[in-house]
Amino acid sequence: MKDLTLSKQDLQAMDQRHRTRLINSLSGFKSANLIGTYDNQGVTNLAVISSVVHLGSHPPLFGFIVRPSKRRRHTLENILETKHFTINSIGADFVKNAHQTSARYPKSVSEFETVGLTPYYDDDFPAPFVLESSLKIGLAFKEQITIESNQTQMLIGEVITIHAPKSAVMPDGYLDLEALDTVTVSGLDSYHVTQRLHRLSYAKPDESLFPLTREGDPTSW
Amino acid sequence: MKDLTLSKQDLQAMDQRHRTRLINSLSGFKSANLIGTYDNQGVTNLAVISSVVHLGSHPPLFGFIVRPSKRRRHTLENILETKHFTINSIGADFVKNAHQTSARYPKSVSEFETVGLTPYYDDDFPAPFVLESSLKIGLAFKEQITIESNQTQMLIGEVITIHAPKSAVMPDGYLDLEALDTVTVSGLDSYHVTQRLHRLSYAKPDESLFPLTREGDPTSW
Repeated sequence: MKDLTLSKQDLQAMDQRHRTRLINSLSGFKSANLIGTYDNQGVTNLAVISSVVHLGSHPPLFGFIVRPSKRRRHTLENILETKHFTINSIGADFVKNAHQTSARYPKSVSEFETVGLTPYYDDDFPAPFVLESSLKIGLAFKEQITIESNQTQMLIGEVITIHAPKSAVMPDGYLDLEALDTVTVSGLDSYHVTQRLHRLSYAKPDESLFPLTREGDPTSW
Repeated sequence: MKDLTLSKQDLQAMDQRHRTRLINSLSGFKSANLIGTYDNQGVTNLAVISSVVHLGSHPPLFGFIVRPSKRRRHTLENILETKHFTINSIGADFVKNAHQTSARYPKSVSEFETVGLTPYYDDDFPAPFVLESSLKIGLAFKEQITIESNQTQMLIGEVITIHAPKSAVMPDGYLDLEALDTVTVSGLDSYHVTQRLHRLSYAKPDESLFPLTREGDPTSW
């Protein structure tokens, strides 16, 4: 295939929307999640986010990026106000509803209602989950970080509760997202389902890797 | 499907490796990239990373997470020493080679050689790219952030150069990763290829979304 080489100057000369689509595609496939929040008046908010990143397992921490635009401010403001949020996986059957949360609604409007998704509460956790999501995570706000290079914010939370279908949890702890029809995003707007090639054994310097089924390596259960 | 609910206490009581596999699966599908670096002695390093995250497009910034373990220290040390690194997409045809870079090799060993991938240099950029990767990005180090909650590091770079197959760049800037056989990771060790459902039009409060082909919306070219 013929290769295209783009320099910093080429990128700067590009039409802004064109460049945004290209740059957003470069990191590879991204997670597709809905962040659920509420404010002190009880208004709920739902935002599609492709930047959730794993920061550690002991304690279990996840972060996500809030760009300094007006659009995502509601999520940021709500989390600072009420200190809790949910991460909800996006399934192939409600991709359109999820994508619609990226429209610029006023703060008084709950995206749950407008896009047609259902708030779900468990007794012990204050922020709204998405009923339609197979995998629902409740987190407590831990830390806000400002990225100096572009004034972007990273919000970090600790996992307090997890709701997942029992059948998708493998004997070694791995969660089969594919069995849940979880989608992945590329660029700003492309949604994909997946097909597993294989899991791979734990890499050691002087051993050959071997493919595993979705159940993993029976010696590690 | 029957749901499993796990509390913070359940997570704390879990076997550590079991918990690591579960927590690493929660964020959804992740990008699969190789980070290429070199040190002042000219020794190259290659590390499989699933945490590359888009931070902004103007300027084009990406970050990734380095856990406070010994294993990833070489990547961190090299970037602080030589101020440049590359992000290289992982294709379905070399998933095993890429995964093998996660073994604990001594710093004097180049993962390129040990796992059987080829360093590639372009004239203007000092860090090694992966020849086998369809999509190669060269970045200049910008910022290091310590996440106080668990002493994890985030390294941030600005895109200086991009190599991508011309045929995969769509008229509106979107890059068709699927056409490049780019894989996605779930959990610690599961690799997947993808199948596009569709791209979706830009969301506005009072308009219905419509599905787009991989070429995007012709009115936006």
